[in-house]
Formats: sequence, structure tokens, C-alpha cells
Amino acid sequence: MVNDKRIRIGLIGASWFTDLWFLPVLTSHPEVHVAAICSKNGTNAETLAAKYGIAGVYRSAEEMMDEAELDGVCIVTPNDLHHPLTMAAIERGLHVLCEKPLAMNGAETAAMRRAAEQAGVVHGVNFSVRQHPAVQYMRRAVKDGAIGRLLEGRFEYTGDYGLSGPPGWRGSVRSGGAGGVLQDLGSHIIDLSQYILGDAIDAVQGSLRCLESGQGVDFTARSNADQAADSVAFLADFASGGHVAFQTSWVKPQGNNLQTLAIELHGTEGSFKHMSCGYGGQLTYARAGGEWETVELPGLLPIDRAETPSEDRFRPYRNSADNESWRWADAIVQARGGQAPTIELPDFVAGDRVQRIIDAVVASAETGKKANV
Amino acid sequence: MVNDKRIRIGLIGASWFTDLWFLPVLTSHPEVHVAAICSKNGTNAETLAAKYGIAGVYRSAEEMMDEAELDGVCIVTPNDLHHPLTMAAIERGLHVLCEKPLAMNGAETAAMRRAAEQAGVVHGVNFSVRQHPAVQYMRRAVKDGAIGRLLEGRFEYTGDYGLSGPPGWRGSVRSGGAGGVLQDLGSHIIDLSQYILGDAIDAVQGSLRCLESGQGVDFTARSNADQAADSVAFLADFASGGHVAFQTSWVKPQGNNLQTLAIELHGTEGSFKHMSCGYGGQLTYARAGGEWETVELPGLLPIDRAETPSEDRFRPYRNSADNESWRWADAIVQARGGQAPTIELPDFVAGDRVQRIIDAVVASAETGKKANV
Repeated sequence: MVNDKRIRIGLIGASWFTDLWFLPVLTSHPEVHVAAICSKNGTNAETLAAKYGIAGVYRSAEEMMDEAELDGVCIVTPNDLHHPLTMAAIERGLHVLCEKPLAMNGAETAAMRRAAEQAGVVHGVNFSVRQHPAVQYMRRAVKDGAIGRLLEGRFEYTGDYGLSGPPGWRGSVRSGGAGGVLQDLGSHIIDLSQYILGDAIDAVQGSLRCLESGQGVDFTARSNADQAADSVAFLADFASGGHVAFQTSWVKPQGNNLQTLAIELHGTEGSFKHMSCGYGGQLTYARAGGEWETVELPGLLPIDRAETPSEDRFRPYRNSADNESWRWADAIVQARGGQAPTIELPDFVAGDRVQRIIDAVVASAETGKKANV
Repeated sequence: MVNDKRIRIGLIGASWFTDLWFLPVLTSHPEVHVAAICSKNGTNAETLAAKYGIAGVYRSAEEMMDEAELDGVCIVTPNDLHHPLTMAAIERGLHVLCEKPLAMNGAETAAMRRAAEQAGVVHGVNFSVRQHPAVQYMRRAVKDGAIGRLLEGRFEYTGDYGLSGPPGWRGSVRSGGAGGVLQDLGSHIIDLSQYILGDAIDAVQGSLRCLESGQGVDFTARSNADQAADSVAFLADFASGGHVAFQTSWVKPQGNNLQTLAIELHGTEGSFKHMSCGYGGQLTYARAGGEWETVELPGLLPIDRAETPSEDRFRPYRNSADNESWRWADAIVQARGGQAPTIELPDFVAGDRVQRIIDAVVASAETGKKANV
């Protein structure tokens, strides 16, 4: 062990998503040693520890952070634990990769951001769609002027896993946040919009709905105070002058597509349209007045309805160096080696910014007024 | 002429759209005689009169209505003339088919509706997309329970004919109305949403933009007070509990699709997705959790990018009995014969309702507050 120079990572939370998104990648990173994992009941942690050969198994995150000689932790828990666990990790000087959304509200995320910056740890938020090949392509092209100045657009990220009832803690105001799906899926497209466009959302007008007894009910009129929003729409004013419609929902029937990510960007010079779902993805571009053309991208699997819809067709880069947990580990290696950081992570600055927009959308829906961010 | 029992119709306005949409259909209707046409300059009326063999040519609409022994008029003028011309026609007991939007604001449309109902004339608004085969199919299917209860949706009607500058009177607050594209294209999708869903928009949150010096500018901050909105987005609360995002624009680059009509309806039981553009149209349906299936419709030309984009691929029913001017003429024939009306026209009730929603969207955008309809 004295000669093992790999960074030591602990996982807080041992859910299906830890198994899907974090462990396959982190355990295959040559400079990472996954040293410990914890879960409240211990059983889930034991199961994943056995599957991935992880030595340390804990029931207490604090105990794990105190004892397992870690360099950093990944926090993969219900949203209400992101803030206390992140603060506990930063107090111990640990690097942190936190699941999205960064926390429950802007007060928490601002505190987390300040603490991380002051401590000088490497901080990341798992906005796992940033490295999607279509997102990367659009971001570069927008920077190169492909759409000119943004006039209007549309972002959608939807699923249907809430149609049979609120999806566990994600659907609980106390554990997931009032925004519900806005925290869960909406946080991705809020981040993506600003990431791709290099632009900032200044103000929003929001609408929140709960699915109650088979119909949509305004969030302010729901009968269960702990039910988070199931379907959210909002309009966003961007600093550049463009305005964009966002829709996010876990009660939108998907057929059998599993989920839908749709992005449309329309500017003075041209347009992008992107759609990804369980069958694959498609990106098209047109200069104003020109032909629509499909952009062929390595790593973007085409929409093929003969395939079985799957996470792997939706985000095929999951088990690669484009997974944000791999990139976060690389950033830690750089920091430890005293190198200048070259990896642009979705960090707590981005996570804090997204959360303040979420808060503004909820405030707007509750007051019926446009809310500044 | 004493034996000519055809109804006598006059056209007010002799634009390219009169030529495209009204005259080919009305002159081929066996029970219609197009007796007169007028235009302010007289030249346009003369040109179309020669093309279609119309005997009466006028420069004054009032003179035409007084002299040409008409049963009804079609009003195909800038929006600011819809109210005075309609009132003048109703005073003379004439049936009226008015272009959309019905008028400039809800005060005008309410007066027009009252006058038409009191006079007992046949009143129609040329919401020319109602008879689109996909619209008709969705309306019947929604009534039959295909989507269950509406949860969320999306309506888009966009073009790019304003990218090079405000499109004539349509882009003028004085002649077209403050809503601009919201009056021009938006009126269609507002009407379609309520028509298809059998549901009513109760409240809206709106955002209006003008294209100014190559960038989007909030409507309230535009430098030319007569410039109408070029790009509009709004969220609508439906009485059923669903919430829906609307986007309409004449500054949205279309590639070479000419225009885009997109409709998504998502309910507790299933979903429709429709898209029509200059290449044709597509309608798909999925029960919640089921496969997406293409709905084959006679009269819906498939999207074929080998074709030249055209109005005829977008609305192939234009020169048929499904054109609203044909249906309005049929309704007049029924009324004249004392038959019970069997034709459901987009009437002044619908036009008035649409206008009050337009007014609410503009008010919401100006105040930054949700506006009740």
C-alpha cells in the first residue's frame, strides 16, 4: 500500500445509480483506488463492495471519511443529504463529486461553493450529459458562430417513471426538494443550456404541476404538502436577448423511448436540433435558409427503432473517460501533482448557478410573477 | 341572373393570400358566385378579377357592399380593418368570413361577436389549419380518450419570413397588433389547442421579443414603438389541469422547411406527436408504455425531403371542401335554406376567445405576471 500512488475514493450511497454510473468507471480508472463505500443500511454497500472488490464498508459516512484515508468522496444520496455530507467532506479536506442537483436550495449551494473554494478542494457536480457528443459538438459550434446570436430555443428532458406515483425520495419535498423533477432532470437542461450557449439565464417564468388522482394540479393547490412537482415548464430570458422554453417531467408518456432529451437552438445565422432517447440520438443543423443536414458524430448512436431502448444507446459514453467521475478523478490527480488544471468540470459554481435558477422557477410558479435569478 | 340561385360573395382585399386561399376554392364551389372584389388601390382587385372572371371591381368596400347585391363577404385585409369592415358588413346583414386573427384586441372581437350573433349572420374566422387531417384525427381521438387526461403539451407554429425585417403590416403594432407573430401564426395554435383538446386556456405567462439590430430585445424595451413582437413564447394553464408551452415566431430559421407546425399532447393514457412542414407531415401515437406508431392518414402527405417544400405539402386540403371558405359557403347555403346548421365553423366565438388569450399573453409579457383570460 505504501507504493500505491492511486488516489483513494470513497462512495457515499450505494444505490442502483452508484452501480450504473460511478463504480464501473472509477474501478477501471488506473489512478483511482475505490477504497470504501457506505450506505445507511450497510446491505447495499456490502453488495456493491462484493461486486467491485471494495475493502471498506461502512454505515456512517462520517466514520468512513474519518477512517478510510480517502482523497475524495462521491456523494450519491438523496438531495437533502448533499449539503451536510459535502460540508463534512470539505471540513476534512476531501475532494467532492456530488450528484446533481447540488443541493436543496440556493442558500445551501452558495455555502457549499464558498466552502469548496476556500478549502481548495476539487469540486464537481455530476451533470452527466455535458460530455454527450451532441452537446460537445453544439457547444463548440455555437462558440464558432454557427447559430449567430440566439433568438429562441427549446430544452426538454422528460421521462415517465413518475406516472405510477411519485418516484421515491425524488418526489418528496423534504428529501428531493420542492422542484421535484426540476431538480432531478431539469437541473441537467438548465446546466446544458448555459454550458452550450455560453450564456446566462437572467429571469424565468415558471409553472409547476403535480399529478394527483390522475390529473394535473397546480403545485400550490396540491393536497400532499410533501409532494414535489411532477411536471414543470418555464420560460427563460437569456442575457444575450434570446428566450427559451424548458419542459421537464417524469409523468410524460415516452412510448417505449425510456426518456427524451430534446434541444433546439435558433439564432440569427442558423439552427441546431437534437433529440436523444433510448433508441439513440440525432443532431441536425441548418444555416438560415439552407438545407437541414444530419451531423454525423462518432459516439452518437443513431436512432434505431429495431434496437432495444437502453441507457447505453442514450448515453453511450457512460463507461469511458468522458464520464464526469473519471474526469473529476483526473482533476484530482492533476491537483495532487501540482499541475495547472486543464479539465473543465461541471463544478460547484455551475451547480450553485443551476440551483438559483431552480429556486427562481419555483418562486415564479408560486407567486405568478417573473423571477430574476 | 334571376335563375342564378348561387350565393353572391364579395372579396375585401386582393392580396396574394386571397389568390392562394380564397378564390380558387370559392370560384369552384357550385353554389357560390364570386360577384365582386375590392382593393384599396384597385389594381390588385383588377388583376384577380381578370384571373378569376369576377364582374365587380371596387376600390371601396362599403361601395361594394352597398352595390353588388352580396350575400356575404370575405375579409382578407390587414388586421386593423377586420373590426370596422366586419361591423359594416353585419350592419348590411351580410354573412362574414374574416381572416385570422379576428381583430386587434378583445374589445373589438367581443363587439364583433355580439353584433354577428344579434344579426344572425353566418360568421367564420379563417383558422385554416382546423381541417388539417392530423388535427381532425387528434381531435376525434382525444374525445375518444386516446390520451386520457391532458398533463402537458407543446404547440409550435413558426416561420422565418421576419428574419430580414418586420413582415409588412403584420409586423406593425398599428396595423397588425402588438402581438405581431402571436396574432399571425400564434392565433392558429391557440385555436387548435382548444379545438383539439376540447379544453380552455384559463391563464398564461408570456414572453415577447423583437428582433432588433440582429438580436432579441424584450418587447417592452424595443426602440420602435410600432414594431410588433417577432418571437413569442408562453405557458398556458388549461382548465383540465394540464399545462402547455407555446412557441410562435417568424424569426426562427426553418432551414428550407418554409414553416413548422408541431403539436405534442401528453396525457395519462398516451401521447400524440405531430409535425408538419413544407415537406409534408407526420403523426405518431403511443399508449403510455407502448410503441410509437405512425398514424397513416389519407390526405396527409408524408415528410419527403426529396420533394420541393411547398404550401401544398403543408396543407394539401387547401383546394378542397375542407377549406374553411368552402365550409362557410356551405353554412350560408344551409342557413338560406332554413336547414339546421350542421357545419361547425371556426366562428366569432372562437375568434373572440383566441383574441382574449392573445391579449392576456401580451399583458403578461408587459407586466411580468401571470394573466387570467
